[in-house]
Amino acid sequence: MNIEMIRAAATRIDGHARRTPLLSSPFLDEIAGRQVFVKAECLQHTGSFKFRGAWSAISMLSADQIKAGVIAFSSGNHAQGIALAAQKHGAPAVIVMPVNAPAIKIANTRAYGAEVVLYDRATEDRDAIGARLAAERGLTLIKPFDEPLVVAGQGTCGLEIAQELGNRDAEVAVCCGGGGLTSGVAIALAADAPKMRVRPVEPAGFDDVTRSLAGGQIMRNAQLDGSLCDAIITPQPGDLTFPIMQNLCGAGIAVTDDECLRAMGLAFARLKIVIEPGGAAALAAALFHPDAFEGDTVVAIATGGNVDPAVFARALDTLA
Amino acid sequence: MNIEMIRAAATRIDGHARRTPLLSSPFLDEIAGRQVFVKAECLQHTGSFKFRGAWSAISMLSADQIKAGVIAFSSGNHAQGIALAAQKHGAPAVIVMPVNAPAIKIANTRAYGAEVVLYDRATEDRDAIGARLAAERGLTLIKPFDEPLVVAGQGTCGLEIAQELGNRDAEVAVCCGGGGLTSGVAIALAADAPKMRVRPVEPAGFDDVTRSLAGGQIMRNAQLDGSLCDAIITPQPGDLTFPIMQNLCGAGIAVTDDECLRAMGLAFARLKIVIEPGGAAALAAALFHPDAFEGDTVVAIATGGNVDPAVFARALDTLA
Repeated sequence: MNIEMIRAAATRIDGHARRTPLLSSPFLDEIAGRQVFVKAECLQHTGSFKFRGAWSAISMLSADQIKAGVIAFSSGNHAQGIALAAQKHGAPAVIVMPVNAPAIKIANTRAYGAEVVLYDRATEDRDAIGARLAAERGLTLIKPFDEPLVVAGQGTCGLEIAQELGNRDAEVAVCCGGGGLTSGVAIALAADAPKMRVRPVEPAGFDDVTRSLAGGQIMRNAQLDGSLCDAIITPQPGDLTFPIMQNLCGAGIAVTDDECLRAMGLAFARLKIVIEPGGAAALAAALFHPDAFEGDTVVAIATGGNVDPAVFARALDTLA
Repeated sequence: MNIEMIRAAATRIDGHARRTPLLSSPFLDEIAGRQVFVKAECLQHTGSFKFRGAWSAISMLSADQIKAGVIAFSSGNHAQGIALAAQKHGAPAVIVMPVNAPAIKIANTRAYGAEVVLYDRATEDRDAIGARLAAERGLTLIKPFDEPLVVAGQGTCGLEIAQELGNRDAEVAVCCGGGGLTSGVAIALAADAPKMRVRPVEPAGFDDVTRSLAGGQIMRNAQLDGSLCDAIITPQPGDLTFPIMQNLCGAGIAVTDDECLRAMGLAFARLKIVIEPGGAAALAAALFHPDAFEGDTVVAIATGGNVDPAVFARALDTLA
């Protein structure tokens, strides 16, 4: 991975992915005790940054690969990003999703024209299902984070932050699953805004990246269910992404589901954006863990916004 | 009023107001039966386009006027726009608000540093209260729409639409109260994208602009209470704004509160933005009154997003 791959991805996604706004509110600054900027990736096509990586990867496929189609595993955001990017390239898409993925994400993935194959995480082998389908149909697998073209696409978000804020002292909090966005943004900022430092943010109890960075080796999560932050729950950091995070990122930060719901409520009230629990983790860290950061500026990437109304109602309740 | 005043306002607000994004979703296009773009003014500072006009007007005051301070009448969005723009100019601000304005708008106006004076619309004379305070303290009154510098500021939203979409055939639906945004955008588009036509959108039962345009003279609303769309309920079109709308706008469109709630729910689910009922009127027209429009593209300006959580919960219920 290198910065030239990210710049090339930026050229490919130009005019296709949205350049998302950087929002702020004096009310949030007051809570955090410092200047907080929110990169609103929830306003990206399909509602999350994943469309960047999906477009980056699919736009590099050959005509034969496009014709045969693509396959992806995802609990929802990568699924939608791949589905829409594939649809716009005229490529068939098969998405293998856990049966307990949020209903809205399954419905949206189908609505973007993908064939959704559901599996039970407890009893079925996702990789075996995917390998069989890929072999039968000649599908190209697009991995959600351990894929250089995907990391390059996610890194374009970092280029935009550097362009908008310049090279200033700041910590950049990133909602972190497998580390695709985190490592891509870290490479982009190291090149274009080296005074900025990336901080991975994870759900408490699912902080594999935080523990891996602290321990100097890849560690796994003990469980994969039981958090509202489905979007950023992964078994372990990627083989591609972990060394990048080791080189370039500061320590990880863990936040609770309750903190994510409160951050969603404040984003509703103060920024007028809709974010899902996993997409609110970085903002939750900025607002409710001020001692975890240094300096007077934190940029929080709000990674996604696909949220069931019932969950959002719980976030509204935190404002009462 | 002329286009040069709007271009001058654009220069003054540059770097202070946000350039808001133009959003879209294939799901919304499908409902509307055409391409729908949403200009997300809810992402503007203070949560509505009103900050544009407030900054445009306050930035033209003399040092003595700034020192003495400003006064405004508003049910909430102009109030917040004036309060924040005044605060950033170091000007004291007094805002006269109806006692039944949404609680969140009153609280926000105070939080932006303004002194809020509440009055009862049924029993007290707003203008008398304002005139007394202005005389006592030497305050400059900044009217919400019938003020050229305010109209010029709101018109900058139209310049941005023209810059982003170019001069293409489109109808531009605008949530319309007194007509400040509607007339400002109409002037901007007449100059920079003359193939676009502005369509005022109002709440059913409070459609003074629609009836005035149809009748060729200013008509009043029979009542001022009883709609969720508090943000765009005004007694009648402005003396400044009405002739501009007569010259440049197509017919008005009226939408129901229920349609606005449904549009809010769809903006939540599909665009990940928070809009209030009055700010959703234009999108409601685009989605639920397709026969009211011509051509294959509608731009709906989502004017504001300050909404009480209980009202937003009703919008979420429409998605069930």
